[in-house]
Amino acid sequence: MKAEIITIGDEILIGQTIDTNSAWLAEHLHPLGIRVHRILTITDTRNAIREAVEEAFKRADLVLMTGGLGPTQDDITKETLAEFFSTELERNQEVLKGIEDFFRSRDRPVLEVNRAQADLPKGAVILKNTRGTAQGMWFDQNGKVLISMPGVPYEMKGIMNDGGFDMLRKRFKTPKIIHKTVLTLGIGESFLADVMSDWETALRNEGLALAYLPSPGLVRLRLSGFAENGTSEAVSARIDHYIKELRRRMPQHVFGFEKETIAEVTGRLLRERGATLSVAESCTGGYVAHLLTLVPGSSEYFKGGVTAYADSAKTELLGVPADLIERHGAVSEPVVRAMAEGCRKRFNTTYAVATSGVAGPDGGTPEKPVGTVWMAVAGPENTVAQCLKMGRSRKGNITVSGLMALNWLRNEILSEQFEKSE
Amino acid sequence: MKAEIITIGDEILIGQTIDTNSAWLAEHLHPLGIRVHRILTITDTRNAIREAVEEAFKRADLVLMTGGLGPTQDDITKETLAEFFSTELERNQEVLKGIEDFFRSRDRPVLEVNRAQADLPKGAVILKNTRGTAQGMWFDQNGKVLISMPGVPYEMKGIMNDGGFDMLRKRFKTPKIIHKTVLTLGIGESFLADVMSDWETALRNEGLALAYLPSPGLVRLRLSGFAENGTSEAVSARIDHYIKELRRRMPQHVFGFEKETIAEVTGRLLRERGATLSVAESCTGGYVAHLLTLVPGSSEYFKGGVTAYADSAKTELLGVPADLIERHGAVSEPVVRAMAEGCRKRFNTTYAVATSGVAGPDGGTPEKPVGTVWMAVAGPENTVAQCLKMGRSRKGNITVSGLMALNWLRNEILSEQFEKSE
Repeated sequence: MKAEIITIGDEILIGQTIDTNSAWLAEHLHPLGIRVHRILTITDTRNAIREAVEEAFKRADLVLMTGGLGPTQDDITKETLAEFFSTELERNQEVLKGIEDFFRSRDRPVLEVNRAQADLPKGAVILKNTRGTAQGMWFDQNGKVLISMPGVPYEMKGIMNDGGFDMLRKRFKTPKIIHKTVLTLGIGESFLADVMSDWETALRNEGLALAYLPSPGLVRLRLSGFAENGTSEAVSARIDHYIKELRRRMPQHVFGFEKETIAEVTGRLLRERGATLSVAESCTGGYVAHLLTLVPGSSEYFKGGVTAYADSAKTELLGVPADLIERHGAVSEPVVRAMAEGCRKRFNTTYAVATSGVAGPDGGTPEKPVGTVWMAVAGPENTVAQCLKMGRSRKGNITVSGLMALNWLRNEILSEQFEKSE
Repeated sequence: MKAEIITIGDEILIGQTIDTNSAWLAEHLHPLGIRVHRILTITDTRNAIREAVEEAFKRADLVLMTGGLGPTQDDITKETLAEFFSTELERNQEVLKGIEDFFRSRDRPVLEVNRAQADLPKGAVILKNTRGTAQGMWFDQNGKVLISMPGVPYEMKGIMNDGGFDMLRKRFKTPKIIHKTVLTLGIGESFLADVMSDWETALRNEGLALAYLPSPGLVRLRLSGFAENGTSEAVSARIDHYIKELRRRMPQHVFGFEKETIAEVTGRLLRERGATLSVAESCTGGYVAHLLTLVPGSSEYFKGGVTAYADSAKTELLGVPADLIERHGAVSEPVVRAMAEGCRKRFNTTYAVATSGVAGPDGGTPEKPVGTVWMAVAGPENTVAQCLKMGRSRKGNITVSGLMALNWLRNEILSEQFEKSE
């Protein structure tokens, strides 16, 4: 089942607004087996709308439109669609009452432009908008469906959730797509593809699909397959089989699934063990603490951190010996170890993570170029440290170091448990 | 001058990724007088790419493409474009050397799939990518231009900023749009529009345009005007006049211009005064430190911070008396003041900022509901504190509190100077 999305809006075409509606619609249509194969943003003119709808119907069975339904004169989507479907506008009394109530309940006057929002194409099914005054419209002609909705994200989502998706489910009966996403950290897209090429080939030979979705420091792998009648569980099990194999082969890199964050996963491990955490950050400058504290309930295991940007902060707040910094430099193994150990002691936590590096753009030397990052994890058993080489972008270095530090902590927690259970 | 943008990526069509590249491109083409009238997202197949390019060239003089240039097998944009422009791929030795250096500098092996990224269409001008291995390509045939770039946002932006926009400027000569952006914090969009409505009317009557661009906690105001031949300076001066008036009327809220961040602006004020800063964060959990340390060179004035999530961290690392927390609660004026003063002492800085609040979703009480945030600024003269009421989203509360804390510090630094100069 092929669908296309048409977004109407000059604000998107001049870059003032980012179109988030299309991604939301695509994400929610996908599990219904409705495949969006085009997303088009156009300007709010009769010609552009007409041309886009005509084109879309050549290829797709379903067209979803957002935007262009505002009360002002420049919104002509409704008229254009009425014309396209050879019908005319007619004032809908029930909708009119809803609009008048909407304004009355907000103590605002009802203008004629607002009343005119109750003028709707005859023959279209109205998808009620309970959050605003522009209604959704469902046209079904010649075996093809067009849904037009307002562009305000929460109104559009409301219309789809309130009944739009249900109507689509009933109207189109299509094979279901099952997909699962595996999250990896600390391994590049091409290296991953190379190491796992036999696995990828086997997976594709079984009719499953694989997509690499990289973002700084992180690669998401999406495995998907079509489920014909009643085969959902079998397809799901096949995907699980490949996920299990991936995890077995790279346990250090696979940290989670679907929409999890590394901070959530690591936090859960800490909580399960009744363990606590503190962080001592130099180059990551508070980013690791920020990632951790974005997670609701993190105060249960995260006790706090020190952003030790100045050397004096390293010595005074974390107890790093001044001569250690003098001898080895702040970006060094002895110092990052002392930071982690000092932090663990100060906050009295099970674990402490420390970072010290050259984030850039300045501060690099031939020995320690921009992108050199030392990190350490101090735990109940011992302290471990490693040096990473990042790139040249300050923001990239901060982001990737922060994610890698948390993933490394995750691995240390898991390996300690492993050692103990031996 | 009409342009179209084509985005290639299944991850967008299934809603896993939101296309931010198109908005960025559209925003940056607009001031060059290049009008984007279509943004199209398609799937990564030869047919879809070919069809999209053919269609786009029927209407537009310029087509910008992003995505589909990865090293894996499923990326076939390069081949498709070579075919479309009747040319062939050829290994570019200079690009190859760059790719090999890229991997070597990161201590990673160069795979054949990476080397193959140096296979580029003969006759295309290469737009160098210094941040990754997929190059940009510029095709100029039959009076029309197509630019193909990788989909990774910071690589694509790098390619355009490094030379792409300059080449467009030279190749197409069109009327210029002048626009300037004013950044405000701590005042809502509709309230701003209401208070400044006379100003907005006057501005529009002069033929200038105004756009409100809100994001959490922050509203950007973009003023723009068309400059006909030789009138650039006059239009620029007219815009400046309105900006000056806006600043005069809301100096607390207007913190900067264009792409500045509040951390950059505040950092500059500190540097100019030879002043230093430390932060004590509870509810913002490291976010203020993170904002500050994203700025290159921030170590000059930012000495560090404490994320004091646990009460024990507040007492032990910041010297907040335990009985103060017991009597008033951690989210209270006395505690946030003590945090700021303790922090200023520990780090020995000119200023210290402290936050303590209920970020949510849990932890709210009838007296201190979710969104209650206390913040304090301790300076050489005195300590000031205020309580803000935020919303219900944890991430929103963290983001907005962090920005507001820095803006408040900015205002405190400026007002102290004012007091002294009197």
